[in-house]
Amino acid sequence: MKTKLVTYFTQLMPLTEEEKQAVLESAEVRTFAKGTTLLQEGQIAQEGYFVLQGVIRQYQVIEGEEKTTNFFTEDQWVLSLTSMLQQVPADHYLACEEDVTVITGDETKEKVLFEKYPKLETLSRALLERELGEQQARMSRYITQTAEQRYLELMHTRPNLVHRVPQYQLASYIGVKPESLSRIRKRMTQNRQPNSK
Amino acid sequence: MKTKLVTYFTQLMPLTEEEKQAVLESAEVRTFAKGTTLLQEGQIAQEGYFVLQGVIRQYQVIEGEEKTTNFFTEDQWVLSLTSMLQQVPADHYLACEEDVTVITGDETKEKVLFEKYPKLETLSRALLERELGEQQARMSRYITQTAEQRYLELMHTRPNLVHRVPQYQLASYIGVKPESLSRIRKRMTQNRQPNSK
Repeated sequence: MKTKLVTYFTQLMPLTEEEKQAVLESAEVRTFAKGTTLLQEGQIAQEGYFVLQGVIRQYQVIEGEEKTTNFFTEDQWVLSLTSMLQQVPADHYLACEEDVTVITGDETKEKVLFEKYPKLETLSRALLERELGEQQARMSRYITQTAEQRYLELMHTRPNLVHRVPQYQLASYIGVKPESLSRIRKRMTQNRQPNSK
Repeated sequence: MKTKLVTYFTQLMPLTEEEKQAVLESAEVRTFAKGTTLLQEGQIAQEGYFVLQGVIRQYQVIEGEEKTTNFFTEDQWVLSLTSMLQQVPADHYLACEEDVTVITGDETKEKVLFEKYPKLETLSRALLERELGEQQARMSRYITQTAEQRYLELMHTRPNLVHRVPQYQLASYIGVKPESLSRIRKRMTQNRQPNSK
């Protein structure tokens, strides 16, 4: 399964056999059962994850209520950067919503790799640029869209996700109460009926 | 003014005199009058900016209406990454809300610098990590906060900004109509009155 990471990297930048081998040797695959909490609010994040299989949910607990702030699925990076970089307590939880397989990474390992293979640092920079670009786009969409548009887009861009996690989590993710998401879904079903106006 | 960029960099990572000199030589300072549009929807972004002075606003026009998605002030980076990296038309505008002084950068210049000074690539990666961390935090806050909380936080974390841009732009940025922002401000003023409950 580790080769998935190499495939992912080489889509961004060609790597030599030696570089590929170094990535494979450094990559540690881990599996977690559904329900496992990978990070709790208040803990300092020590590692990042590349998702090979499964769904990891990021959420915060605010006034006793769970607010879902992200879902990570296959080929996505789970990086609690502020906590990791500044070594401050995380403001969120990371929970496995399915059985999860990830590749873990940490700063120490990364440093060793980058020193020996400078191209991997260039790759890491390219990756961060892409992630930041995606995050910028996600932020702009969130600001400019209505909850209904956010749901439609989620169905369009991540159709798989919609069926893998409970509705209350999706509702919180698009910024509405579960009742409102039910109404949105009902309206959408009605609009799809052939004889409706 | 260029030295501001060097000061900013060395807060992240120590640089040698030679590296500092290389940054200064590569940095190009430009000024734009208030009202200048730096990037239009549909154009491909060719350069990034480091703000030395002024306010740059990012907005989208959706169904004829301006939606403000970001404000960039002193010591912030303005990077339209998706457009720049993928060479696709930008979905947003960048406009100078005050007279603006920036340092401009582009990929070609960056590449030349990184090849000669690998530490600057490490610095760039550290910078991207920090930017991504901040962007993640901003996204989570936006999802979990009410419009009122967003405004309060803006007043707390960027007090300067609140007085530098028109209310309708702030309203759009926190996701409400200008009337709603007026109500929020009124409520906050009332709550500050000594005899109010």
